[in-house]
Amino acid sequence: MVRWEPGTPERLQRAALELFATRGFEETTAAEIAQSVGLTERTFFRHFSDKREALFHGQERFAQAFLAGMETAPPDASAIEVVACALETASAFFPDERRPHSRTRQSVIDRNPALQERELHKMATLATTLAGAFRARGVGDPAASLAAQTVTAVFGIAFTQWIRDGEDRPLADIADDVLAELRTLTSGSPAPAG
Amino acid sequence: MVRWEPGTPERLQRAALELFATRGFEETTAAEIAQSVGLTERTFFRHFSDKREALFHGQERFAQAFLAGMETAPPDASAIEVVACALETASAFFPDERRPHSRTRQSVIDRNPALQERELHKMATLATTLAGAFRARGVGDPAASLAAQTVTAVFGIAFTQWIRDGEDRPLADIADDVLAELRTLTSGSPAPAG
Repeated sequence: MVRWEPGTPERLQRAALELFATRGFEETTAAEIAQSVGLTERTFFRHFSDKREALFHGQERFAQAFLAGMETAPPDASAIEVVACALETASAFFPDERRPHSRTRQSVIDRNPALQERELHKMATLATTLAGAFRARGVGDPAASLAAQTVTAVFGIAFTQWIRDGEDRPLADIADDVLAELRTLTSGSPAPAG
Repeated sequence: MVRWEPGTPERLQRAALELFATRGFEETTAAEIAQSVGLTERTFFRHFSDKREALFHGQERFAQAFLAGMETAPPDASAIEVVACALETASAFFPDERRPHSRTRQSVIDRNPALQERELHKMATLATTLAGAFRARGVGDPAASLAAQTVTAVFGIAFTQWIRDGEDRPLADIADDVLAELRTLTSGSPAPAG
């Protein structure tokens, strides 16, 4: 019988990240992750299909943050206003105290192609989900797909900047700036010099 | 000694696509692909690291089509004009007679998660390459990353439409429309109804 163990996935996820960061992803086994927090390999596999998934726990809540933001937009909001609402709520999902964790996680992903592909898959799945939510608001195609990919592209670029060494602005402010840059870019004014 | 065999990768690629489409990706081996065109498994592995790669042959030429388009833009072109040039040349890489092949290839990818991840990786690599090319033109950050991701997002959405059943417009026309939709979207006018 499977007992409900509050916080177990989170404990395993933290342990996995620490071991991946110190020993390397390839060099760490699911059994070692479980043992490092006093659990068994069997318990690990009750929560995750493989060790890669331990880095992607919470993906549904991540997607929900974007969707919840879309719902804060009034029904007659333009698609770009809904994009901005999604970015705002998703940014709040990453408060400043989470930045060190996000930096460590990204450094682990950057070192492993299988994790990079999984991360790309996560963002592509998010874009598909968001496109559906834009369609449900009455946005047609291809605007719904474009709006969804605008959200994920702006978020991805802002997030990469947020975890850069020395960056201390909140994610929401960076996302605002990146979205403004996209509007400047697509309005066709001259490209800013580097 | 490795002899130069003109057209061998292309023959293997065609054979791989046909077998993946008829038998399934998982059910097809590299040896079977090679045998179906009278070649050995060893020859297959001289050209591709695994059977998955046979579907991604030509990726460099694909990226070059975008880069060549960027080079057709005058030095003082705005970033969005350069985006349009990249899309135009990349679209020309997919003439109408290639549509049936592209449809078959996509149907194979849609049925296999490992191929989907590889395709996402291909597009992410392309975006990274294009961002570098925008920076080399003097476009700053985050505009360079945004411009690059605008190219890949618009191309991806246009391509998906191009291979849809019943669609007969050229890819370049569809890409033009999608880019125009993005400009409408980001300019903040009301979202079009579905």
